[in-house]
Amino acid sequence: MTPLTLPPGISKDTFAAYVAAARGVVGNDNVEVITGPDQFTKDDYMDPAKEHDMYPVLDKDYFVSSAVVAPRNVAEVQALMRISNEFKVPVWPFSIGRNIGYGGPAPRVPGSVGIDMGRHMNRVLEVNEADAYCLLEPGVTFQSLYDHLVSKGLEDKLWIDVPDLGGGSVIGNTIERGVGYSPYGDHFMMHCGMEIVLPNGELVRTGMGALPEPGATGAPDQQSPNRCWQLFNYGFGPYHDGIFSQSNYGIVTKMGMWLMPNPGGYQAYSITFEREDDLPAIVETIRQLRITMVIQNAATIRSLLMDAAVLGDKESFCPGVTRPLNDDELDGIQTKLGLGRWIFYGALYGPEPIRNALWGAIHGSFSQIPGAKFHLHEDGKPTPGVLDIRAKTMRGIPTYDELKWVDWVPNGAHFFFSPIAEVRGEAATRQFQITKRRLVEAGFDVIVDFIIGMREMHHIVCVVYDRTKPEERARALAVVRTLIDECAANGWGEYRTHLALMDQIASTYSFNDHALMKLSESIKDTLDPNGILAPGKNGVWPATYDKEKWRLQAGSQVTRQSIPKHPGPSPRL
Amino acid sequence: MTPLTLPPGISKDTFAAYVAAARGVVGNDNVEVITGPDQFTKDDYMDPAKEHDMYPVLDKDYFVSSAVVAPRNVAEVQALMRISNEFKVPVWPFSIGRNIGYGGPAPRVPGSVGIDMGRHMNRVLEVNEADAYCLLEPGVTFQSLYDHLVSKGLEDKLWIDVPDLGGGSVIGNTIERGVGYSPYGDHFMMHCGMEIVLPNGELVRTGMGALPEPGATGAPDQQSPNRCWQLFNYGFGPYHDGIFSQSNYGIVTKMGMWLMPNPGGYQAYSITFEREDDLPAIVETIRQLRITMVIQNAATIRSLLMDAAVLGDKESFCPGVTRPLNDDELDGIQTKLGLGRWIFYGALYGPEPIRNALWGAIHGSFSQIPGAKFHLHEDGKPTPGVLDIRAKTMRGIPTYDELKWVDWVPNGAHFFFSPIAEVRGEAATRQFQITKRRLVEAGFDVIVDFIIGMREMHHIVCVVYDRTKPEERARALAVVRTLIDECAANGWGEYRTHLALMDQIASTYSFNDHALMKLSESIKDTLDPNGILAPGKNGVWPATYDKEKWRLQAGSQVTRQSIPKHPGPSPRL
Repeated sequence: MTPLTLPPGISKDTFAAYVAAARGVVGNDNVEVITGPDQFTKDDYMDPAKEHDMYPVLDKDYFVSSAVVAPRNVAEVQALMRISNEFKVPVWPFSIGRNIGYGGPAPRVPGSVGIDMGRHMNRVLEVNEADAYCLLEPGVTFQSLYDHLVSKGLEDKLWIDVPDLGGGSVIGNTIERGVGYSPYGDHFMMHCGMEIVLPNGELVRTGMGALPEPGATGAPDQQSPNRCWQLFNYGFGPYHDGIFSQSNYGIVTKMGMWLMPNPGGYQAYSITFEREDDLPAIVETIRQLRITMVIQNAATIRSLLMDAAVLGDKESFCPGVTRPLNDDELDGIQTKLGLGRWIFYGALYGPEPIRNALWGAIHGSFSQIPGAKFHLHEDGKPTPGVLDIRAKTMRGIPTYDELKWVDWVPNGAHFFFSPIAEVRGEAATRQFQITKRRLVEAGFDVIVDFIIGMREMHHIVCVVYDRTKPEERARALAVVRTLIDECAANGWGEYRTHLALMDQIASTYSFNDHALMKLSESIKDTLDPNGILAPGKNGVWPATYDKEKWRLQAGSQVTRQSIPKHPGPSPRL
Repeated sequence: MTPLTLPPGISKDTFAAYVAAARGVVGNDNVEVITGPDQFTKDDYMDPAKEHDMYPVLDKDYFVSSAVVAPRNVAEVQALMRISNEFKVPVWPFSIGRNIGYGGPAPRVPGSVGIDMGRHMNRVLEVNEADAYCLLEPGVTFQSLYDHLVSKGLEDKLWIDVPDLGGGSVIGNTIERGVGYSPYGDHFMMHCGMEIVLPNGELVRTGMGALPEPGATGAPDQQSPNRCWQLFNYGFGPYHDGIFSQSNYGIVTKMGMWLMPNPGGYQAYSITFEREDDLPAIVETIRQLRITMVIQNAATIRSLLMDAAVLGDKESFCPGVTRPLNDDELDGIQTKLGLGRWIFYGALYGPEPIRNALWGAIHGSFSQIPGAKFHLHEDGKPTPGVLDIRAKTMRGIPTYDELKWVDWVPNGAHFFFSPIAEVRGEAATRQFQITKRRLVEAGFDVIVDFIIGMREMHHIVCVVYDRTKPEERARALAVVRTLIDECAANGWGEYRTHLALMDQIASTYSFNDHALMKLSESIKDTLDPNGILAPGKNGVWPATYDKEKWRLQAGSQVTRQSIPKHPGPSPRL
């Protein structure tokens, strides 16, 4: 069967031979040739809840696989690497969940063979209660990990950290350096130990995992994980884990994650702020509380519309309005929902005396901002905004409700623009103003939040568009391309991105004539001389690809000058 | 001038030409040919306090450089890499401080040219008060960083984390993955952003440092560090920092470190335990308190003799005894000093209500162990053991007092054996028993501590020997070689080691036919095809070296079977 898109440089016959070889490895049922874009985006590959399609930003048949292969175990992943090298067919591993806003499971190079790591390799291999960690396969989602803990009666003892949606792969999210909202919100920092299949098929365990565990007879046991693998990251010698994040150097087949022991108490809260101009004061207050760990978790400042969009669509709030909402309309929504222009969501972790001490400091600091209102979450009582949802999220209970904000517009889809910034009122204001001006200019509402880590903010900008309108899609893409350049000119870079934007963002990290990218690509060529594993991932291209050609084919030619003007009337700014 | 040891495969003439070229780069005053081992180990290269020699475990003229070159800036480091490639001369970078127990500044390959990164490149480039970080050059010691904070009046606002001795390089300690004792005790976790000269001379900045900061004119400014470089580690794409730790892939020329904002209060304490057999209960208690962050810092359990050796030498406690001390003698010291067989040192961080809550939990838990005695540190009041010193250390104030325990025996020297273990009473007991049996069998006293990180223990075994006695030195080396093998057979590996032991320890991380080492060495050969940078560091050899030959030359042939018997009478065990 001929696929919609063949791998580059691969003939139909070679492709057929590859597919036959792959079937020999994983069995007939686990190889599927993709003959149309809808087939690839069907529910099986998207989401256990089977609710949503993916959200293409280019034409739906651009980022598409030639086939999808689902290995059943590590040995099959190794074998697939070997035949992919033999046939020089590029592969694109994905795990499970939607990966929405970043391109779903689609490959950077059209026609790559998708390696579905999640379909079969989805076991929780270990949960260690005393040491508070788990060892996972790629197909374990935040939801399935949580369900596993529930099934073992451990969900109160060991807390997981979840991102906004519970359906994604824990490994996938972590190696993409996704974040959550509890004290364990920096997922990559909280991983411990990896098992990786290298592009040449070799199997590596990092850190203490490289030290064989003694078997029952005293001889080394090559299968059993070392007892310290999930306890100590570094091992001995070069510490490699980081180069397998946001990279195309290997396929992670197992990973350890630290779990948070029940802290002895929990209290979620929100604080609403009345004016858009309160942003700098909020940010300055948070920095001082966060860096001293008075705010213990990766807490968020959400814009009014992010909350509003979870509670209703644009039409329900402002019937007939298609242009970006103006200040009067935002005031109306704010009053109707009893929210602020900004809503801060945080939580207190620990026994009551500790929570009380922390809350005293937090309440006292934010009270300096006129109009700040404080809301403690109590089960069963009405709470403003999405505090019921966030109370679960910050406690590590997976939810799906937040996906609703994508329905803000009809046929809603979104993608993310996510620059990193210093935790400064001035920086937040400037970044927000740049973003707001560009979004409104392009006809989009401003739906953003700031996630405050230890010493930086992830500013998450959600561009929501009607995926059935090619013009609107192109406008969404163009405005983000503009924002990337404009933020780079201000010294800010993005932490993660969509397939279509990887090259552009990678090119902003250009110090000393792109020295870091040269380093990345020299390692790439060493570990993957045929360039078969995820070529172009995060802008890292193997020498076997014409980087410039592929960059242009993904539409990087859209520049700021060519942003389509929004057809509607200008809003009041 | 001909050096004591030429670089391998380099003639006198080539060496002379290299030295001339190096003088052309760094100036005459900054190149010194090493004609004898004492010259290399002179005070300048050892310690600002100029108190101590290094502690050779092989003959003093084995691990020795041919010359030492001290670059004055980054461009000179780059130029040195280029000429080293041209002449194929191996180089061994070191920073500042003693690096005692690990080989001092000596190179793994005799005759390598030492690159003294500390002599000139010793500036604190930035201290950022609001974001609590600093940006350092390699020659900045914990002491000089602390002094810098004092000079700026910031020492109360921003706390550093220090290891046991204050004279070492912050960068050197961190990239060797050393640990300290405050909540910021995992130094590598608390670094943020690196600048690195690669073996080919290329200059790379990692993370957000790869994004140019806008200059005054709006154009990118290649010199100014990006404002987020020290705020967010990961940047975009593969995260490389880890592979520049414990490695020979590049020379770190700048690094950011996070500083701890004053937590609002501090209280150091110690708890003494009466019996050696209390160890498992102590460890089990700590695990539960540590993993829940009730114990907030990287706290330590020290054996009686580690404290005793700081307070006096062996002769002062037990005149005339040269064999390992027996239980009666240990009882006598314990009574005399008012200490325990084990002493736990911890600290509470935060305002008083939080400290009180934490102390309540800690006191309550340890009170379950019969005989436990609690001591809060109060300035100016007598305290048991080394609490006066540890109170400084856990507060981030550099000290030098702990070096005294090396004088336990005449002409004392030491080196470390440091396996990683799970935080379990059973594991601590078993590891302690193995260690004790082997040390006593070889005639050494048992001086150890356990440092408890988030989920593992560093068991630090200090083998103290008379460096003037070749037989005793050989016995010290042999007993550690035995312990390495014996612990590996139990599934435990070391986190860091002395030059002489790097190959042996690296070889224990052998999963899947040494797959991790093959990965390390393939990256090595890519980044350093001539194998000029620190060949053999942590067991990673470039293809240009005969690994097996070099391994044997460093005395790896000493095996357990050949441990010399201690000549004295057997102690009572």
